[in-house]
Amino acid sequence: MIPDDPPPFAPFERVRSLRLYDSPWVGLRRDVVRRAGGPERDHHVVEIGDAVAVVPVCDDGGIVLVGQYRYPHGRTHWEVPAGRLHAGECAEAGAARELREETGWTARSFEPLPGFYPINGISAHWAHLFVARGCVPAGEPQHDELEQIVVRAFTRPEVEALLDAGRCADGFTALALLYHLRREPAR
Amino acid sequence: MIPDDPPPFAPFERVRSLRLYDSPWVGLRRDVVRRAGGPERDHHVVEIGDAVAVVPVCDDGGIVLVGQYRYPHGRTHWEVPAGRLHAGECAEAGAARELREETGWTARSFEPLPGFYPINGISAHWAHLFVARGCVPAGEPQHDELEQIVVRAFTRPEVEALLDAGRCADGFTALALLYHLRREPAR
Repeated sequence: MIPDDPPPFAPFERVRSLRLYDSPWVGLRRDVVRRAGGPERDHHVVEIGDAVAVVPVCDDGGIVLVGQYRYPHGRTHWEVPAGRLHAGECAEAGAARELREETGWTARSFEPLPGFYPINGISAHWAHLFVARGCVPAGEPQHDELEQIVVRAFTRPEVEALLDAGRCADGFTALALLYHLRREPAR
Repeated sequence: MIPDDPPPFAPFERVRSLRLYDSPWVGLRRDVVRRAGGPERDHHVVEIGDAVAVVPVCDDGGIVLVGQYRYPHGRTHWEVPAGRLHAGECAEAGAARELREETGWTARSFEPLPGFYPINGISAHWAHLFVARGCVPAGEPQHDELEQIVVRAFTRPEVEALLDAGRCADGFTALALLYHLRREPAR
């Protein structure tokens, strides 16, 4: 029995909106909003295009991760392949492309996992999640100039050990892996 | 056996940094960066203060969620209590404060779950996660003018049904609940 969503609250009225920054990578605006009968208040909104992340699973249950450097915090850690969707690209095609580009692996099929808002207090940014089945190496990765990536296949117990030790610090990665493990009990 | 982190890549050189926006809620900058021997490239960075989210657990295993309206996407859905840390506030104190303010409930004790970077492709923003044990109602919530919140206690099977149906669309909520459920097998 799935509980209902809460009764929807009335949307805020947007009194005006000030564009602060535009770029293909990120936009920023400051909206002046008002609850019914309330005073005007600022609400910042970060604009980031939809993203996709994919859990690459092999037929033996192993999972392929990428060791990736992230400039904002400076650490190199294990992540699932992920990235922004291209213009006009459906989420599953984006998952297949990111998998191929970041790992050089391809998959037999893709199944959706629940998507999520990574930072819904300040952005409508949405992340699609997939499991890729039957993954096999198919060639060399294609990294762009700012990507530094190594590729490694892990056993399921290794991935569980990483998660339980809190070592999957990327939220997309931890959430995608936890959804996958929950849906697919260990053999 | 916990796998090692990948060998760290050399950090990018920051050639220069352009501040695009500052506010107490969000900052934005555009850094010009360079990989060793490579060309200069832009890298945007969104600056958001650290956050905390807390899974409020009752002694019967039930979990308290808040039904909350989120302006960026306009939906009202179930979330765990969460918010930004105040200046100088430790993460556990922030968890206790957000729990009390958003639900009116208090806890006997707090245990950390693994934290995470919600959007580490573009931000060093960090979220601390906690489980709050022995939660009981202790008074009225204290919502600010832009918060519209209802409070409800769910059974563990209800929370599992929400997660499995993909109805925990807030990433902080889904990740905190999945870590908690994984660590605490059903009774």
